[in-house]
Amino acid sequence: MPSYLKVRAHVVDFVNKIKKLGKDDPRRIMHSFKVALAITLVSMVYYLRPLYKGIGDTGIWAIMTVVVVFEYTAGATLSKVMNRGLATFLAGVLGIGAKYLASLFGPKAEPIVLGCLVFLLVASATFSRFIPHIKRRYDYGVLIFILTFSLVAVSGYRVDKIIALAHQRLLTIILGGATCIIISICVCPVWAGADLHSLTVSNLEKLASFLEGFGDVFELPSEVDNTNRSAERDRSFLTAYQSVLNSKSTEESLANFAWWEPGHGKFPFGHPWKQYLKIGVLTRQCAYHIEALNGYLDVKYKASSEFRIRVQEPCTKISFEAGKALKELASSVNLFTYPSSSAKHIQTCKNAVEELRHTTCFWFEIQPVAAWSYGMR
Amino acid sequence: MPSYLKVRAHVVDFVNKIKKLGKDDPRRIMHSFKVALAITLVSMVYYLRPLYKGIGDTGIWAIMTVVVVFEYTAGATLSKVMNRGLATFLAGVLGIGAKYLASLFGPKAEPIVLGCLVFLLVASATFSRFIPHIKRRYDYGVLIFILTFSLVAVSGYRVDKIIALAHQRLLTIILGGATCIIISICVCPVWAGADLHSLTVSNLEKLASFLEGFGDVFELPSEVDNTNRSAERDRSFLTAYQSVLNSKSTEESLANFAWWEPGHGKFPFGHPWKQYLKIGVLTRQCAYHIEALNGYLDVKYKASSEFRIRVQEPCTKISFEAGKALKELASSVNLFTYPSSSAKHIQTCKNAVEELRHTTCFWFEIQPVAAWSYGMR
Repeated sequence: MPSYLKVRAHVVDFVNKIKKLGKDDPRRIMHSFKVALAITLVSMVYYLRPLYKGIGDTGIWAIMTVVVVFEYTAGATLSKVMNRGLATFLAGVLGIGAKYLASLFGPKAEPIVLGCLVFLLVASATFSRFIPHIKRRYDYGVLIFILTFSLVAVSGYRVDKIIALAHQRLLTIILGGATCIIISICVCPVWAGADLHSLTVSNLEKLASFLEGFGDVFELPSEVDNTNRSAERDRSFLTAYQSVLNSKSTEESLANFAWWEPGHGKFPFGHPWKQYLKIGVLTRQCAYHIEALNGYLDVKYKASSEFRIRVQEPCTKISFEAGKALKELASSVNLFTYPSSSAKHIQTCKNAVEELRHTTCFWFEIQPVAAWSYGMR
Repeated sequence: MPSYLKVRAHVVDFVNKIKKLGKDDPRRIMHSFKVALAITLVSMVYYLRPLYKGIGDTGIWAIMTVVVVFEYTAGATLSKVMNRGLATFLAGVLGIGAKYLASLFGPKAEPIVLGCLVFLLVASATFSRFIPHIKRRYDYGVLIFILTFSLVAVSGYRVDKIIALAHQRLLTIILGGATCIIISICVCPVWAGADLHSLTVSNLEKLASFLEGFGDVFELPSEVDNTNRSAERDRSFLTAYQSVLNSKSTEESLANFAWWEPGHGKFPFGHPWKQYLKIGVLTRQCAYHIEALNGYLDVKYKASSEFRIRVQEPCTKISFEAGKALKELASSVNLFTYPSSSAKHIQTCKNAVEELRHTTCFWFEIQPVAAWSYGMR
C-alpha cells in the first residue's frame, strides 16, 4: 500500500508540475496546438487524393519540414524555414553540378570523383559551422546543405530524374514551410522581439526593486534576524535579480530570432535589436555588483553597529535613488520615451555618494552601481 | 582599385579568422574530417550494389542520420543516436497501433480517427518538450517521435508494408548511428566529460590568477596610470575571469552530454558530473565578487591615498592567500587529490581578514570571497 501511495504522490506531483508549466506561460499550450494543427493540415495531402497524386511520396518531406521547422517563436520558425528552403535549393543546384562534373570522367571514375567532392564539401561545410556568425544565424542551413548535397550527389539516379525529384522536394518544403509561417504568424504569434523587449524591461525592474528595497533591509538586520519567516516572504524582491545573472544566452538567441521577424506591433522591421544586447550587458554588470551587495545582508558579514549607524542614511539614499533612476529607465525603455526624471534621481544619488565619500569608504561598492545607472543614459 | 583592395583586405581578414579558429582548437578541423569520413563511408551503401539492393532507397536515411546526429563531442553524438533510435522504434510501434485502431472504425471514419490521434499525440508530445528534464535530455528524441509517428500514421500504406518499411528504416538508422558512434569514439574522440573537467579547472585558475595579482595592482594605482600600455599587457590576467561569468550554459550542456559517455581515461562511467555543476555555481559566485572588486581598479573610483595606505598590507595578503588557496583547489580538482595545503592559506587569509576588521570596513568585500574559498572545501 505505501508503494501505491508513493506512485500516486509522484503522479500528483508530476501533474502539478505540468499544470504549472502551462499556467506560467499559457502560450506553451497554444504552441502545442499550433504544431498539431500544422501537421494535421499538411497530412491532409495524403487524404485528399488529387493533391496526393501530384506531390506523390515526397509528401513526407512536407510533414518532416513542419516537424523540424516549427519553433516556439515566429522568428525562430522563420529563420529555420528560410535556412531550409535556401539551403535545399543551393545544395540541389551544386549537387547536380557535381554529378555532371563527375560524369565527364567516365563511368568508372565517377563514384571516386563524387566521393572526393562530397568529402571535401562536407568537411568544409562542417568546419564553417564553427565560425561564430554562421553558427549564430545559418547553422541549420549548413546542416540542410550538407544533407541535401550528399543525397543528391550520392543518389544513383540520372540528372533528369534528380531534377524532377528536387522540384517535388522543393515544392513540398515550400508547402510545409508556408504552413508553418502562416500558422506561426497568424495564430496567437509568439514574437521573439516582443519577448526580448519585455525581458529587458523586467530585468531592469528586478534590479530597481532590489536597490529600492536594499536600503530598508540593510537598516534592520536584527529584526530580519528575529522574524525570519515573515522577513523571508517580504524579501523575495531581493532574490529576483538572480535570474538576471545568467540571462545572456536567452537574450542573444531572442535577438537573433527577432532579426528574422517582420514588423509587428510597436516594433517595425529592422528595429535595433542589437541595442537590447548592449543594455543586457550593462544590466548584467549591474547585477554582478548587486550580487556582491547582497552578500552584505548575510548576518555573518555584518559590520559593527557603530559603523552601520554612520553610513546608514547616505547608503539608504544612494540605493533608493539608484533604484528610482533604474525604474525610470526601465519604464522609458518600455514606452520608447526619453527618461526625463532619471537624471534628477542620479544627481541626488551622486550627492549622497559625495556625502558618504567624506565620511567613510563604503562608497566603494555603491559608486560603481550609481555610475553604471548614469552610464545607461 | 580601392574597392579591389577592400575586397582583398576582407578576404585576408576572413582567411585569418578561419586560421585562428583552427589554431585555437585543432580538434575542430579533425571533427570536420570525421563527419566527411562518416558520410563518405555511409554513402558507399549506394556504390556497393549488393548492399544497395538489400537496403534499397531507404539508404538515404543512413546519410540523413549521419548528418543530423554527428555532433562535436562523443557524448552529444551518443545522446542523439540513442534518442533517434529509441524514438523511431517507439513511434513506429505506436504508429502501427494507431493505424490498426483506426482501421477498426471502417474505411470512411479511418482518416478522421487517425487525424484526431495524430493531433492529440503531436500536441501532447510538443508540450512535453517544455518540461525541463525532457528538454535537457530527450528533446531530440521527442522531435523524432513526432516525426516518425506522423509519417507512419499518415502514410497511405497497409500495415504489412509499413512494417517492412519500418524494419528497413530502423536498419539504416542503426547503420548510420553505429558509423557515427564508432568514428566519434575511436578517431580522436572529443569527450564532453574531459572538456567539462578542464573547463572547471581553468575557471578556478582564472579566478586564482586574478586574486593573486589583484593585491599588487591595487597597490600601484599611479604607476598603472602612467605606464598605461605596458600595464595593460601585464594585466591580461585581470580580465581572464570575465569568461567565467557566462559559463553556465556551456557547463550545463557539457555535463548533460558527459552523462551519455562511456568510461574514458580518468573518468569511469557514472563519474559524478553533477558535482562539477555545483563547483561551477560557486565559481561563478566568486567571479561576481571579483567583478565587483575589479571595479575598484578603475582610477575614477579610487579611495583617498591615506585610506589606501591603511588597508594596503592586509588587503594584499587576503587577496594573495585566497588566490593561493583557489589555485590549490584547482589543482586538487584536476588531479583528483585532497587539497591538503589550501587550509593553511585560508587560515592565513582569515587572520588577515581579522586584522583588517579591526582597522577598517574594507573586509566587507573581501570576506565573502574568503568565506567562499573556505566553503569550497
